[in-house]
Amino acid sequence: MGKKVFHEILSLEEALHSLIQNFKQRVFHPLPAEKIKVKEALGRVTAEPVFAKRSSPYFHSAAMDGYAVHSKDTFNATEKDPVLLKIGEQALWIETGDPLPEGFDAVIPVEEVNVKEGFIEIYKSYPPYHDVRPVGEDIVATEMIIPENHFIRPFEIGAMLASGILEVVVRKKPKVGIIPTGSELLTPEEAEKEGLNPPSLIEYNSSVLKGLLEKDGAEVKVYPIAKDDEFSIKSSIEKALIENDMVLLNAGSGYGKEDFTYKVLSELGEVIINGVAIKPGKPFIASFCKNKPVLGIPGYPVSAIFCYQLFVRPLIELYLGAKLPKEEKIKGLLSRQLSSPVGVDEFVRVKVGKVGEKYIVSPLGRGAGLLMSVVRADGYLWIPAGIEGFSPGKEVEVFLWRNKEEIDYTLVCIGSHDNTLDVVYNFLRRKYPHISLSSAHVGSMGGLIAIKKGEAHLAGTHLLDETTGEYNIPFIKRILPERSVVLVNLVYRIQGFIVKKGNPKNIFSFSDLTREDVVFINRQAGSGTRLLLDKHLKDLGINPSQIRGYDQEEYTHMGVAQAVASGRADVGLGIYAAAKALDLDFIPLAEERYDILIPKEFLDLEMVQAFLDIIRNDEEFKKMVVNLGGYDVRHMGKIIYEN
Amino acid sequence: MGKKVFHEILSLEEALHSLIQNFKQRVFHPLPAEKIKVKEALGRVTAEPVFAKRSSPYFHSAAMDGYAVHSKDTFNATEKDPVLLKIGEQALWIETGDPLPEGFDAVIPVEEVNVKEGFIEIYKSYPPYHDVRPVGEDIVATEMIIPENHFIRPFEIGAMLASGILEVVVRKKPKVGIIPTGSELLTPEEAEKEGLNPPSLIEYNSSVLKGLLEKDGAEVKVYPIAKDDEFSIKSSIEKALIENDMVLLNAGSGYGKEDFTYKVLSELGEVIINGVAIKPGKPFIASFCKNKPVLGIPGYPVSAIFCYQLFVRPLIELYLGAKLPKEEKIKGLLSRQLSSPVGVDEFVRVKVGKVGEKYIVSPLGRGAGLLMSVVRADGYLWIPAGIEGFSPGKEVEVFLWRNKEEIDYTLVCIGSHDNTLDVVYNFLRRKYPHISLSSAHVGSMGGLIAIKKGEAHLAGTHLLDETTGEYNIPFIKRILPERSVVLVNLVYRIQGFIVKKGNPKNIFSFSDLTREDVVFINRQAGSGTRLLLDKHLKDLGINPSQIRGYDQEEYTHMGVAQAVASGRADVGLGIYAAAKALDLDFIPLAEERYDILIPKEFLDLEMVQAFLDIIRNDEEFKKMVVNLGGYDVRHMGKIIYEN
Repeated sequence: MGKKVFHEILSLEEALHSLIQNFKQRVFHPLPAEKIKVKEALGRVTAEPVFAKRSSPYFHSAAMDGYAVHSKDTFNATEKDPVLLKIGEQALWIETGDPLPEGFDAVIPVEEVNVKEGFIEIYKSYPPYHDVRPVGEDIVATEMIIPENHFIRPFEIGAMLASGILEVVVRKKPKVGIIPTGSELLTPEEAEKEGLNPPSLIEYNSSVLKGLLEKDGAEVKVYPIAKDDEFSIKSSIEKALIENDMVLLNAGSGYGKEDFTYKVLSELGEVIINGVAIKPGKPFIASFCKNKPVLGIPGYPVSAIFCYQLFVRPLIELYLGAKLPKEEKIKGLLSRQLSSPVGVDEFVRVKVGKVGEKYIVSPLGRGAGLLMSVVRADGYLWIPAGIEGFSPGKEVEVFLWRNKEEIDYTLVCIGSHDNTLDVVYNFLRRKYPHISLSSAHVGSMGGLIAIKKGEAHLAGTHLLDETTGEYNIPFIKRILPERSVVLVNLVYRIQGFIVKKGNPKNIFSFSDLTREDVVFINRQAGSGTRLLLDKHLKDLGINPSQIRGYDQEEYTHMGVAQAVASGRADVGLGIYAAAKALDLDFIPLAEERYDILIPKEFLDLEMVQAFLDIIRNDEEFKKMVVNLGGYDVRHMGKIIYEN
Repeated sequence: MGKKVFHEILSLEEALHSLIQNFKQRVFHPLPAEKIKVKEALGRVTAEPVFAKRSSPYFHSAAMDGYAVHSKDTFNATEKDPVLLKIGEQALWIETGDPLPEGFDAVIPVEEVNVKEGFIEIYKSYPPYHDVRPVGEDIVATEMIIPENHFIRPFEIGAMLASGILEVVVRKKPKVGIIPTGSELLTPEEAEKEGLNPPSLIEYNSSVLKGLLEKDGAEVKVYPIAKDDEFSIKSSIEKALIENDMVLLNAGSGYGKEDFTYKVLSELGEVIINGVAIKPGKPFIASFCKNKPVLGIPGYPVSAIFCYQLFVRPLIELYLGAKLPKEEKIKGLLSRQLSSPVGVDEFVRVKVGKVGEKYIVSPLGRGAGLLMSVVRADGYLWIPAGIEGFSPGKEVEVFLWRNKEEIDYTLVCIGSHDNTLDVVYNFLRRKYPHISLSSAHVGSMGGLIAIKKGEAHLAGTHLLDETTGEYNIPFIKRILPERSVVLVNLVYRIQGFIVKKGNPKNIFSFSDLTREDVVFINRQAGSGTRLLLDKHLKDLGINPSQIRGYDQEEYTHMGVAQAVASGRADVGLGIYAAAKALDLDFIPLAEERYDILIPKEFLDLEMVQAFLDIIRNDEEFKKMVVNLGGYDVRHMGKIIYEN
């Protein structure tokens, strides 16, 4: 059982200040230099200024194909009174790059002369050094070509080689040791070989951190997983301290474990930070042992990534003596309310889409355990400690993890979730690698509202009108009366009960949902599936309060299927594809129409056309959708309604 | 002697279109897939979508330290009417990450309970799955976690490992062979070992291209230099075609050589492009041999870099099936006129500085041989074929080669050139790695005008007033009457004649410059040194037309020294440091004051303070300046004048 060691939680600003100041005072930096071959120096940092050894070019040479001449021989030449120069004496043939012959001082391009019986005829005077590349035109020997603390690019490699430099003095790479800690952790290879059973967990943070570190120019060694005992952790750290400039401990899964880290680090050195008021990343620990930083990186993957960004990277920069590139920034409008506790600096992953001329910023899941929120994110925004959050429509600054260009070519699809959208995305990337699809699952109604607010290019929708029994059109007319839109069919799909394999609780009808022994998992309000459920319940006179789990909401069909698969619920309403994906049973109830709504103003966009191309013309795509099961593609791509 | 093969010069648009269309029709792409370890997949491109094998987490686990309970046991608890749950039966201690015990469905955080004699007391009801991380919260087994044609980042490596994936199918790396061609070329190593004599040239383009290609994910093989004969080039290409997906020929120095390339490529395959209306990069050649692209990249380094960017990179993207990151773009105001021939797409390297709120864009040297113009550039701008150029003050778009953040921290120094500025730059980077110094050499007068126009933070100036004999201040009063400025001394320096070693022409006075056998090299109009010369000539009654070479201008002291060292001139006026750097003789004439002018509005900027810190407080810096020779630092950093 973890015992809490109480230590003041620092603000982000305090923590960063303390970390940097302690580093500057205690740690030898920047790192010592080493001499390496210029040809192997790409991405390294100069530890000294580099001065040219030779000039480039190092001899006067012709800049054009033509004749080398003495400029003074040309001084009297005019259009009316041309001058003749004897080839082989006064005029020598010369090609671009050839050295200027001794005594000659200008080049006349071949196009500007007339060759006549052993002479060239010229029609104007040429000053000295006309069409000559003089010595040192590019690089003058002794001049500084690269300053200290500069990342070497291919260009600098060329300039060094051109000026006679074969070796360059660069900073050693910072060596960073990563020690995964946690008795429950298995390497991915162990999990594959030996199987995975609770409470064992796959250790993957070290691979994420290694990738981030290597991209930033560090040399990384990942140590074996240390068990949760003092001896194991201590001896791992001691070994890593000898072999590295910095050590990262990556806690297993739990908060309880960090107290242990704290104890060991206090014994080995001095802990200067134990907890920072940030989200994610709060349980970050920093210490200095033997004048080297030893940092405790929290175990949740998103916390680990932000702690890397906030605390590890600045130390790498100090070791290198150079600043690493920062993320590109972009301004956009927040699509919905974002609240954040005062006193905490919070970092929220977001999707960014360019809809019309505006960038729309949509927050993603904020859990520190949601690595996929980072994979799916276009970047993140920062809610400073002093701020309670942002209102919808607020202009916010986003730090981009993707290229801005990529975002400009991202089709924003907000609305109901359907598995075929993932498949569309993949076929889009295959045929149009520069186009991405970002789909946010907020339910059909949410999609219509996003279109109304100009926050999406497309909306997936399957809203059943209770009175007319018609899909989508009545809702579009009601919610978007003023917009010119096109409604295109994507699929017809079967909705039904997703139940455990073999349907052990014999669930076949809506009235079964009210049984004592049945736990239901619902979809969120505003989703088409929820509407479908509610319509049926109403028709049957069933009160939602009779259903256990009616208040438990998931946002996707896969979420519902997962809840059933994991035993959290016995049944949910959803599509066949989701049941099939997780090998569950499915009790079909009704076919419904799933359409894509597109404002007409976006129809001409290349990416919208690409989307339509895939759903209309790609037979392989259609086949794959049919194979998902429960889908009918008879009207795929057909216009259902226009306004 | 090169024989011209006439071939239609294509526009950039035509050339790109032809290249891409031919590639798509003739070349197998994207490249085939290979299966590699996920841990080694950083930066690779997925060749298939990746679907999760396991859910993550794969069991329900506690999200907090506390007690696992049955949620239904808590339903009646209130603040007034707390409920007691028996520890060990109804409530089990659980730590973050631990699996939820069989049958339990919620976690109550330890902070929210009161432990009382074997019971916990609770004060509210908890719904099912309260503080539980349900199975699949992050990743649901079977869901698509990465689409096809996606660059794998550290995040995706984590997500794959977390979901039980150890191997991933990625595109093979495109293999690119580079063949340097040219009988006059030596490798840098050969030049070092065997010495370098005209017309030999150091071959360095292959290293630049290799670096660019490797950054973009290609596998590069550089072949031995091919001599300029048909057999040598042909057999190199044939070998490289077997071993690679694409071959780049990099012409030696001359235009004459490319005709030869054309001949060989026509025999081996089909030439589709021979010359493009771009600057630099016009002699680009593209062919397809055995269904692989073989491209002739021009020999000038800047041409090679732009041809890489314009033509090679898009083909790498097609091989990979994914888009490479594009340069960040920025808008800025052009500092001076830029003309460009109509019908040619021109790419101009520029410096960008943020002065006040504006980004100021200053074109650099446009010669295709000026590799240093790329090293020094912050990016480039594109003058489309249909445009004659841009006027000063025009808002232009710059494609950045540096980070925007780096540009924001670049001190812009425009004006007279002094070698100490290079030294300042290096000491700045050493102490303040995030600050850069960009110095443009346009002469003292140009510096004052740049300050007036708000285009520089600092101006180096040494303008001698003919009538008062005073430095700088009369000019500042005249040109910048309305600006609040500070004039800070940098150095006193000796100006004199830079002459060949041993002063073979016995040049000791200004009147020697008028001698028949003496060739002078001048500085540009508006430079302090030119003013100094003109003042002396006027005092002595010497007419500039009496001086040979008076019209030959260089923009820096080093340029003047280089002209003397290379024999282009016998004498120039300049500073001692330049003569010393190139081991020339120096005839001292006068000490002059070289100051830095700073508008007061910029004094508080961190980078201006850093600059002043270096020149005022860094003793090592002062020592280094003194060691350059010809400098006196007695007033370094002192305020000379304020307004």
